[in-house]
Amino acid sequence: MKVSLVKNILQANDRIAEQNRMLFQEKGILALNVMSGPGAGKTTLIERTIRALDGEYRIGVIEGDIQSTYDAEKIAATGAQVVQINTGGACHLDGNMIRETFDQLNLDEIDVLIVENVGNLVCPAEFSVGEKHKVMLLSTPEGDDKPLKYPLMFHESTVLLVNKIDLLPYLDCSVEKIRTEATKINPNLNIFEVSGKTGEGMDAWFNWLRKSANGTA
Amino acid sequence: MKVSLVKNILQANDRIAEQNRMLFQEKGILALNVMSGPGAGKTTLIERTIRALDGEYRIGVIEGDIQSTYDAEKIAATGAQVVQINTGGACHLDGNMIRETFDQLNLDEIDVLIVENVGNLVCPAEFSVGEKHKVMLLSTPEGDDKPLKYPLMFHESTVLLVNKIDLLPYLDCSVEKIRTEATKINPNLNIFEVSGKTGEGMDAWFNWLRKSANGTA
Repeated sequence: MKVSLVKNILQANDRIAEQNRMLFQEKGILALNVMSGPGAGKTTLIERTIRALDGEYRIGVIEGDIQSTYDAEKIAATGAQVVQINTGGACHLDGNMIRETFDQLNLDEIDVLIVENVGNLVCPAEFSVGEKHKVMLLSTPEGDDKPLKYPLMFHESTVLLVNKIDLLPYLDCSVEKIRTEATKINPNLNIFEVSGKTGEGMDAWFNWLRKSANGTA
Repeated sequence: MKVSLVKNILQANDRIAEQNRMLFQEKGILALNVMSGPGAGKTTLIERTIRALDGEYRIGVIEGDIQSTYDAEKIAATGAQVVQINTGGACHLDGNMIRETFDQLNLDEIDVLIVENVGNLVCPAEFSVGEKHKVMLLSTPEGDDKPLKYPLMFHESTVLLVNKIDLLPYLDCSVEKIRTEATKINPNLNIFEVSGKTGEGMDAWFNWLRKSANGTA
């Protein structure tokens, strides 16, 4: 009974997410659902991406947090359109929360919509928000055992950004092991090694994003 | 209806957790529910704690992971009693999962039972497993904005271990800010700055644990 209930919730979400997806398609918007554990560097990555692609793509952002508006304020400072969702305790975003932001965004002036999910390596992977691609971050301090311990997000994502590579000299973390284990779970995963802090490795991610926005990825 | 359902699930869990709590009390076991985001260093902290208190307290461990047995293997290498729970997708442990391990543990030979929850800074804080205290870790690479973004776990915990302080020279993270914001949410929080890697600061945590096990904290 608990299982069928969960299934009903997921199916109801899938219907709304599908409506969002059709709307994004109709408007020519590339929608990305960016997920990771807490503090893996999602907001910094998004800030850098907006600044780097300024003039090429109009990027809009939906910020998901349990509470607070810090992340939306950081994004607003870039000049991008941004809406903050406070989930009030809920551990992930869902299709309905995204739909409810549409009256606060001018979707006709957005080429790429980045949804920053709640920091949680588990639950967000189960709920589509209508994105074309799920993009996940794993930061090197979290350790190289994460793919096998939290497989669903690696399985569902199109892109894995291994972030905070600037910290590698101070950690016992093998990016090679992350690559091997993540690829076992999802052979099609696009893996980029980046540092949101120094900017290292970000060009490969920007190029993937360009290709996706142009419909060729 | 969704809200009342969630309330029912939480109430059902509270009843089982309370039965666990009474059993631990009857057997003179100090039960701790250790929680954090993924990769904050729970397992390393528990390993170090077992080795440091060897001969003083018999520590048993219940390892919670979505999948895999890595963490239980690490703990087993210390010689401690350990049981692995694989939640098969679920994002937190609950009272019933803990109860189901009791036939695999010799509770009469445990003074301190450490439950290592699934790596998730959100959901585990809502579900008691029958612990006397919730103990949370926040690792410095996760950043100093986490108390205000994920307040519930800080609110519910008795102890906050600020872990990975060995990485502070390479990060933009203020432990002072963590202390200030966490204390605003929970003025009674016991905060210890530690490095599970180097062992720095661990004595204060061991002393808190000794006092708690002896019933004086």
